Amino acid sequence: MAGEPVVLVTNDDGIYSPGLRLLYEAVEPLGKAIVVAPDTPKSASGLGITLHKPLRLEKVRYWGIDIYTSNGTPSDIVYLALTEISERIDLVVSGVNVGDNTSVQVILSSGTVGAAAQAALLGIPAIAFSADVDEPSDFEDSQYYNALLRAIRALSRLVLEEGIPGGADLLSVNFPRKIGRNTEVRVALPALLKYRQRVEVNVDPRGKKYYWIYGEIVTSEENTDVGLVKKGHIVVTPLKLSLTPCNREAVEETKRMVDRLKPLFPEGEVAP
Amino acid sequence: MAGEPVVLVTNDDGIYSPGLRLLYEAVEPLGKAIVVAPDTPKSASGLGITLHKPLRLEKVRYWGIDIYTSNGTPSDIVYLALTEISERIDLVVSGVNVGDNTSVQVILSSGTVGAAAQAALLGIPAIAFSADVDEPSDFEDSQYYNALLRAIRALSRLVLEEGIPGGADLLSVNFPRKIGRNTEVRVALPALLKYRQRVEVNVDPRGKKYYWIYGEIVTSEENTDVGLVKKGHIVVTPLKLSLTPCNREAVEETKRMVDRLKPLFPEGEVAP
Repeated sequence: MAGEPVVLVTNDDGIYSPGLRLLYEAVEPLGKAIVVAPDTPKSASGLGITLHKPLRLEKVRYWGIDIYTSNGTPSDIVYLALTEISERIDLVVSGVNVGDNTSVQVILSSGTVGAAAQAALLGIPAIAFSADVDEPSDFEDSQYYNALLRAIRALSRLVLEEGIPGGADLLSVNFPRKIGRNTEVRVALPALLKYRQRVEVNVDPRGKKYYWIYGEIVTSEENTDVGLVKKGHIVVTPLKLSLTPCNREAVEETKRMVDRLKPLFPEGEVAP
Repeated sequence: MAGEPVVLVTNDDGIYSPGLRLLYEAVEPLGKAIVVAPDTPKSASGLGITLHKPLRLEKVRYWGIDIYTSNGTPSDIVYLALTEISERIDLVVSGVNVGDNTSVQVILSSGTVGAAAQAALLGIPAIAFSADVDEPSDFEDSQYYNALLRAIRALSRLVLEEGIPGGADLLSVNFPRKIGRNTEVRVALPALLKYRQRVEVNVDPRGKKYYWIYGEIVTSEENTDVGLVKKGHIVVTPLKLSLTPCNREAVEETKRMVDRLKPLFPEGEVAP
């Protein structure tokens, strides 16, 4: 790597989240840290990219440094940063999210993981950091803050030096609500589901029905990300974005199913 | 299966998309088809779920049948339908999207695939259908319309009878722009990237910079979904949502990396 590493620091909770400041402080000694965050919270934006409207990038003075804010999604920010701020980015760190991002269900709709995943698709090493806390102010506990800071700094340094561990595309790290005597650092794969979504049905003042979706936790299998974070451990999850079944069987069986569709399209029959 | 199959028909382009009508006509003979679609287009919503505002579900008369519209995302719609319309859904079909959904990059931000993926997470067989067309009116060509209708009906029937082929979570089907003499039905895995995002930098009438993201096609590897659809084939892609690296090596290497973080958290040291 020529020159000091360039680290993009972003999140989906917006610039006022204390988790962003924590993340910046953690990686700042590792190289040149660029902070670009959404101007308003962009939770649940997943890997969404904004194609149908113009985006802005504003430089503001905050925490005694220049940081950038944007009206774009966390994924947009990766592209804006590469275009306007630094053509080379050696690591993208995203978070620290208020709320854990465990299970495939939650990961796939998370803006925090989305920014990291977007970077990973471009071949940039990326780590998403999330914490099972309820409020931004939960980061203010100095012991908690410092424990996260040390873990983030150490892991980010290792990834800068060695890249994402073999075969994975990115890492997602989830911190438990409290870090204490029994906290361990564990590696785990994601559970499929965390919530069974429920819908509350209600009636508005005009007598019309409305619906409110909420999640009821369903899974806490011991060896998944969901279960281990709830148990109080720091969980590091290697993620792969291929969407491809590991067993050849899935492809072969799909081929056998599709073979039965082929008579629908005999040569020449469907020509316009 | 007791009684006739219940098929939920949805999309992310909204109720006025001719692709929704096509999809309904294709599956209507297979059982009880319920149509629930967004009241406005919800493209690029991925697997996003709406947790922070109330949702509506309105019954309207359209195409001579009762259909439902909602202000929610395609993923919301799966939950609303299960709550309010039918506790049992045997198949979710989503689409037919205006624009193909090929490559991991595009799939992960697609609302069309998002609805199918959300259903798959709940264990409901699901198929996303997309077409490499530019405008909704492209569906109006009757030969094209009928070719899609036949393929969708046949595949949906097979999945209703036999489920999603072994090991995969859902199917994503992409139709080429034209169906002609050389069109084949092929099974392929997703490319990682379809677009290299580019950012156009411009200046507004007040002299302030703005940015516009657009995609420049980068990949057309012959054997991926992207390449085969461009080549004019109908491509069926089995998708797996595990996000888990297939090689054990990724997990083992992550464990070795994480072992080096453990001295940060010696027992007792981090207790509050």
